[in-house]
Amino acid sequence: MKLFSEQTIRTQIRSVLEAWGMPEEPAAIAATAMVYADLSGIDSHGISMLISYEKLRDSGHLNVRAQPVVERENTAMALLNADGGLGHPAAVTAMNLAVDKARSAGVGIVSVHNSRHFGTAGYYAKLAAEAGLIGLVTTSARVVSVVPPGAAVPRLPTNPIAFAAPARHNPPFLLDMSTSTVASNKVRAHDLRGESIPEGWVVDESGSSVTDPGAAMSWIHHRTGGGLTPLGGSTATGGHKGYGLAVMVQILSAALSGADLAVTRRPGAAGDIGHFFLALDPAFFRPGGEFLADVDELLDTLRATPPARPETPVQVAGDPERNSRELRRMRGIPLPDSLIAKIAAICERARIPLLLDQPVQEK
Amino acid sequence: MKLFSEQTIRTQIRSVLEAWGMPEEPAAIAATAMVYADLSGIDSHGISMLISYEKLRDSGHLNVRAQPVVERENTAMALLNADGGLGHPAAVTAMNLAVDKARSAGVGIVSVHNSRHFGTAGYYAKLAAEAGLIGLVTTSARVVSVVPPGAAVPRLPTNPIAFAAPARHNPPFLLDMSTSTVASNKVRAHDLRGESIPEGWVVDESGSSVTDPGAAMSWIHHRTGGGLTPLGGSTATGGHKGYGLAVMVQILSAALSGADLAVTRRPGAAGDIGHFFLALDPAFFRPGGEFLADVDELLDTLRATPPARPETPVQVAGDPERNSRELRRMRGIPLPDSLIAKIAAICERARIPLLLDQPVQEK
Repeated sequence: MKLFSEQTIRTQIRSVLEAWGMPEEPAAIAATAMVYADLSGIDSHGISMLISYEKLRDSGHLNVRAQPVVERENTAMALLNADGGLGHPAAVTAMNLAVDKARSAGVGIVSVHNSRHFGTAGYYAKLAAEAGLIGLVTTSARVVSVVPPGAAVPRLPTNPIAFAAPARHNPPFLLDMSTSTVASNKVRAHDLRGESIPEGWVVDESGSSVTDPGAAMSWIHHRTGGGLTPLGGSTATGGHKGYGLAVMVQILSAALSGADLAVTRRPGAAGDIGHFFLALDPAFFRPGGEFLADVDELLDTLRATPPARPETPVQVAGDPERNSRELRRMRGIPLPDSLIAKIAAICERARIPLLLDQPVQEK
Repeated sequence: MKLFSEQTIRTQIRSVLEAWGMPEEPAAIAATAMVYADLSGIDSHGISMLISYEKLRDSGHLNVRAQPVVERENTAMALLNADGGLGHPAAVTAMNLAVDKARSAGVGIVSVHNSRHFGTAGYYAKLAAEAGLIGLVTTSARVVSVVPPGAAVPRLPTNPIAFAAPARHNPPFLLDMSTSTVASNKVRAHDLRGESIPEGWVVDESGSSVTDPGAAMSWIHHRTGGGLTPLGGSTATGGHKGYGLAVMVQILSAALSGADLAVTRRPGAAGDIGHFFLALDPAFFRPGGEFLADVDELLDTLRATPPARPETPVQVAGDPERNSRELRRMRGIPLPDSLIAKIAAICERARIPLLLDQPVQEK
């Protein structure tokens, strides 16, 4: 592990994207969104994504010179074609448009199709909250890994939901969750450490829980059957609810925009990803900041809840990621040597210098 | 157990509500929404609710002559004051208004405050889907029973989310879920049968899972600490996600409308419940019925998923409740003798005849 400054990682991402042919502005927007994930401790959605973006580009399925275009629009809504480009710049455009519409109509909804991976959904929900609005974001994805309750094979991506709401004294409430029990990178982390995984994360093709981490990786990545459970695990513990939420996200993100349904995508096709953005002005319903005061009261009350263990205070959604951002802004963002080597190879292929030879500090 | 026709139960509910002073139209609307829950197998939200509605009325906290009024309105949004009345008629008014707005603006959002219990959220989401629109419904509640991960005491209601989307060949997709792992009536059912409950449904004040059904009932209903887990159970299995969803519902339903936050409600206060209704026209984004075709493709693909056990086909949200409605319309709705006795007492106090002496068939 080596530690790097936010600035170093952002500049490294920008330089790679620009070397691939992406214009300056969208490259800067994508780099800022990606380093936000690294800062927040969502390491699977930060600079490490360059590895899969390079593969996508090499396969001809990423348009680095994408120019997103509004295809349909009214006072409160818009449909955006992301032109096959990286999702981050299209998503920022879409949420900013939803915020503008919400400022005049009270609500703005922007549906996006022909997009690609956009990183962490919470980043875009947070944009709305920072503008004083409620934000709701969902997205589809390419990889089908979640097994419906009672099924032998996976049928859905991990389909995230993000929701943000502003407060006055508190930072915004910020929920950013996959609709699976865990993301597959959590299983990978257990496998690397040789630790068995908890019951209810992964099932085999007979629907039985798998706790051996190597077997779990195989069910998720190499076998036709089995995979991740939807949030709730088995039906006895509410897995049908996480499954229902995953289908809801698929309908809002893909069916509404015209993107791929993931499960019926043709093998080898680009993977048309769809996103859904909603911004809502609480001041329409409650003028005078009463909404902000109520969100403060709710968050303060939740954080003041007597904890089960005195040393572990009760948190609210967004707290762990905000704590990570504070810590990593101060101490640096840790990257494993194996990742640095992969980024080095990407830089070599793109004929640009590696900037990750300047760690702020060894761990 | 005795079996009753839909018509008998609806008429019985109407006659009680009208005897309490509710005008004919709202009483009919509430009775139809309540018998829908009984038909759907959601027995906790049907005629059995008359027991708690009577208590609410006796305590002076239910306005049976409520006249909901639109307090604020624009092209796409409205704020409705339910005037302290039963939630069902206000919720039907609110969703119909959201549907009307979505037909012209593409989206309609109606926020409701000063309401009471409205039964099952899915009933209102389904109204939107039957009008060819996407429907999203959330509601707050009075009873605080859900324990945040790491907390010693409950802080949130079971805060449901309902989502419906129309298809062409299939009945609408209809998700109707509480944001807790299970509702407390599932724990009660296990307690009545003397069966232990699964790990992860209920925790005590130290955050440990409780599996003894009697102890679980005590932690939920009689002790200050402990209670139901949010969807996902412990943090290891995603409980922080269900907790985040429950807070999201509280913000959308209560903070947005100005209803009670539940956790900070004064003891003995009426319990101002808030609801959130969204209707969205998919034809704005995808003219020509492409959205409906995609929802069909998704639902058909999910139902055709190879099952883990050949005898148990994979279902989608709404299937079990629709199967229940078909079965109960044919065979009748089962009511336990203990419930019939309680309804009989309510009828006696309201000086109206009991209609539940005409079962269609003994079980």
